[in-house]
Amino acid sequence: MNVEKALEVYQFTNRRMKALHLAFFLEGWDRETLAPRISAEARAAEIGTLSEMSYELTTSPEYLEAIEVLYAHREELSAVLAHEVIELKKRGDRLARIPQDKYVAYSELSARAFPVYVDAKRGNNWAAFAPMLEQILAFQKEYSQIADPDLVGYDLLLDEYEPEYGQKEYDEFFDLIKRELVPLVAKIRAKGERAPAAWTKQRFPIDKQKHFAEYLRTVMCFNPACTVMAESEHPFTSNFGRKDVRITNHFHEDDFLSAIFSAIHEMGHGMYERQVSAELDNTMSGGGASMAMHESQSRFFENMIGRSLAFWQTHMGALKEIFPEQLADVSAEDMYREINRVECSLIRTEADEVTYPLHVLIRYELEKELLSGRLAVADLPAAWNAKYKEYLGVDVPNDSKGVLQDVHWAHGSFGYFPTYALGSAYAAQMYAAMGKDLDIETAMRQPTLKAIGGWLAAKVHTYGASRYPKQILREATGEDFDPHYFLDYLKKKYTALYNL
Amino acid sequence: MNVEKALEVYQFTNRRMKALHLAFFLEGWDRETLAPRISAEARAAEIGTLSEMSYELTTSPEYLEAIEVLYAHREELSAVLAHEVIELKKRGDRLARIPQDKYVAYSELSARAFPVYVDAKRGNNWAAFAPMLEQILAFQKEYSQIADPDLVGYDLLLDEYEPEYGQKEYDEFFDLIKRELVPLVAKIRAKGERAPAAWTKQRFPIDKQKHFAEYLRTVMCFNPACTVMAESEHPFTSNFGRKDVRITNHFHEDDFLSAIFSAIHEMGHGMYERQVSAELDNTMSGGGASMAMHESQSRFFENMIGRSLAFWQTHMGALKEIFPEQLADVSAEDMYREINRVECSLIRTEADEVTYPLHVLIRYELEKELLSGRLAVADLPAAWNAKYKEYLGVDVPNDSKGVLQDVHWAHGSFGYFPTYALGSAYAAQMYAAMGKDLDIETAMRQPTLKAIGGWLAAKVHTYGASRYPKQILREATGEDFDPHYFLDYLKKKYTALYNL
Repeated sequence: MNVEKALEVYQFTNRRMKALHLAFFLEGWDRETLAPRISAEARAAEIGTLSEMSYELTTSPEYLEAIEVLYAHREELSAVLAHEVIELKKRGDRLARIPQDKYVAYSELSARAFPVYVDAKRGNNWAAFAPMLEQILAFQKEYSQIADPDLVGYDLLLDEYEPEYGQKEYDEFFDLIKRELVPLVAKIRAKGERAPAAWTKQRFPIDKQKHFAEYLRTVMCFNPACTVMAESEHPFTSNFGRKDVRITNHFHEDDFLSAIFSAIHEMGHGMYERQVSAELDNTMSGGGASMAMHESQSRFFENMIGRSLAFWQTHMGALKEIFPEQLADVSAEDMYREINRVECSLIRTEADEVTYPLHVLIRYELEKELLSGRLAVADLPAAWNAKYKEYLGVDVPNDSKGVLQDVHWAHGSFGYFPTYALGSAYAAQMYAAMGKDLDIETAMRQPTLKAIGGWLAAKVHTYGASRYPKQILREATGEDFDPHYFLDYLKKKYTALYNL
Repeated sequence: MNVEKALEVYQFTNRRMKALHLAFFLEGWDRETLAPRISAEARAAEIGTLSEMSYELTTSPEYLEAIEVLYAHREELSAVLAHEVIELKKRGDRLARIPQDKYVAYSELSARAFPVYVDAKRGNNWAAFAPMLEQILAFQKEYSQIADPDLVGYDLLLDEYEPEYGQKEYDEFFDLIKRELVPLVAKIRAKGERAPAAWTKQRFPIDKQKHFAEYLRTVMCFNPACTVMAESEHPFTSNFGRKDVRITNHFHEDDFLSAIFSAIHEMGHGMYERQVSAELDNTMSGGGASMAMHESQSRFFENMIGRSLAFWQTHMGALKEIFPEQLADVSAEDMYREINRVECSLIRTEADEVTYPLHVLIRYELEKELLSGRLAVADLPAAWNAKYKEYLGVDVPNDSKGVLQDVHWAHGSFGYFPTYALGSAYAAQMYAAMGKDLDIETAMRQPTLKAIGGWLAAKVHTYGASRYPKQILREATGEDFDPHYFLDYLKKKYTALYNL
């Protein structure tokens, strides 16, 4: 196969993959926001068939040969295409090293494990899930040993979620987290954790919450001409290219803060997708560069912007106009204190900015021990509970709120968790770099966040997935990843907030 | 290929076709109800690719051979499968008789014709569209001569939209329409056409109109557990199987009647889809039996039920509760008179029950003359205007409101129009047969239309597309199609309404 033919095969396959991707995008969106629940079972068969078609495309001998040919000629390709081909070759080679019977057996195991996990969590029944997790972990261990001659063990799994990040990078990062944040949190606790303010416990009608979500849409420049907002059980962002970016939210009458920060968080993800360069439209390099890079954008807006005093000094008036009775006596400063209340809780997804990385640290340490064989699955709940006590000072009352709380391990996603904390640290480093180019506080006090979004567009978003995150971060901030920005940000913010 | 292998190929292809159909269903729904307009262009490419995949599946030599094998063994197959195979063989053979270059050229012509038509209608520019129509008609004429040795000319085209109906059947039908309805309409006009009642001209807030649409949803047993209601520019019904049936509506503050009858009409289509037998779930015979049969169900509910006095004597209270000020002085009888107001208008889609068939008659006669060559495209506008004057007594002020008003000819859909009138006639025949089994007026006075829906389920809906419409109608009503039921229904209703 010559290069010309290889390009033709590559483009033909990509065109079909994109078409199938449209189907998956629409199906997922429709299922989560609108479809009658009863239709789910019938649709599962069609989704299975579409997945089969997608699998056939990307495993066809012709396509695999095209990748090989393009890889061999990568020096002659555009930078974007070369990056795609290198990544595809890496993934394809890894997959090819797994014996097919093992791969099929693992796919079946994954499918079986999910409902078992759901039932186990619901019934607080660790024993029911543990044998499944044993098998999943056994496969992941074996996979991590044979998939890549250049990268083995946990390093390989970490690389699959965040390229070019392994134990060395994460160890440095999480050691710092542990060293700095465990004592910081302990100091905050010593000052006394605050209960939620009484004014948050009122009823906030959902239609009015939606008005404020629309207000935030304007603030976040989430242009209705190319975006959609809807509702679903759990908030998420989904998109098909730059011109159709969608977020969902979930509104609770007795917890109005939840929907505000979900909206900002999801629109942060959405802004990333919207601002990928138009030059990448007809490539496979649209979308975000990595898990952590995507999370950096949602958490940048949710935390650095949305949980800042300047933001609420600017927008508290609009919120009070919508809820004049509920918020009559609440100032921007009250709001700022409330939305930055530190609480050593059990649940990662509801954690504040300063305890959140400790939740992730715990999973990172446990994954490392599980992968290395130093920790057995049978001992996982005890290890989990001990770490929650050590780092967060809390007692885990049961496994549902402990080791069973996250779905990731049931999906076999070892190596995913660390990206959640890494994203926050990327965001802090970007915030520091942005501060050299523009006055962020002044930018936050404008009616919209256009200036801030513009900086991120030019420095981060525009590259889509055409570069690895390390390069994007280095060029955006002028230096390699440095977790001190994150720690400094947290220490400064919370020292002031809690008068430490 | 043996039968077993043929069945395997058939089922494999159907599974993939259904999966692609899910994608088309979701894309169409999403595009019409929610998607940012700007995304349409990017999506068009993906839809083109999915269509290409679908085309490949149904033209693969293996699939075509499977159809041949199954057709040869049709006596050994289940009745449902045999019907599918006969229909597929018929369609496949017709397509195969068209030289491929002609087919490709025609596909390109169709794609070019649509925007030209839209511009011509918008600009009232018949001359711009006429050359396109010439070419479309030339292809349709040629196609109708060579596609099927057993069926030629307009008969073939008619059969493609309503199997087993040709000029003989339609001539009888439309002759009766002309003989009976032209004088009936003239008599009504002689009595004096009424202007719309003043109370219809008030403002009816859209959120309240939506409340009444939800009320109608209960009346029509349009169970939210397996249905969806949304909004779009033009109302439509769409579904994926029986468990996910969707309608849309369009609300106008200054025309509250529009959304009421759209809702009933679309839920009539939806009820058909919902009540197809579960036994057809894993076949290709779900969905309605034909164009006219589908339209018969929507028009049955819209007209026979929704425009009856008994219906409004039952539900006017609910409507007045929602619009107490607007409808304070309006009785069920006022409503009945208003929604059955006869108006000789120019536009088919807005026509009342009694003039509607005359709009269709005009198109039927013109199509027949065009196909036979007795009428040239150049003379079409004059012929159109003359018939509107003759049958409806109206002067057509311009071609946009005349010969350019429908999109069908631009799509090459010659033979489609007659089904619109035929559906109403099917509905009247079913209404008469139903009246022998149950007291329809009493059934209409219940809180829901369950009894009426149940009769249609058992007699019509359950068979889906597993039989031709003639057989379904014959077995449902105990006799062959007889248009007198329709004429008798109209004459009786309008003689009373207009004191003729």
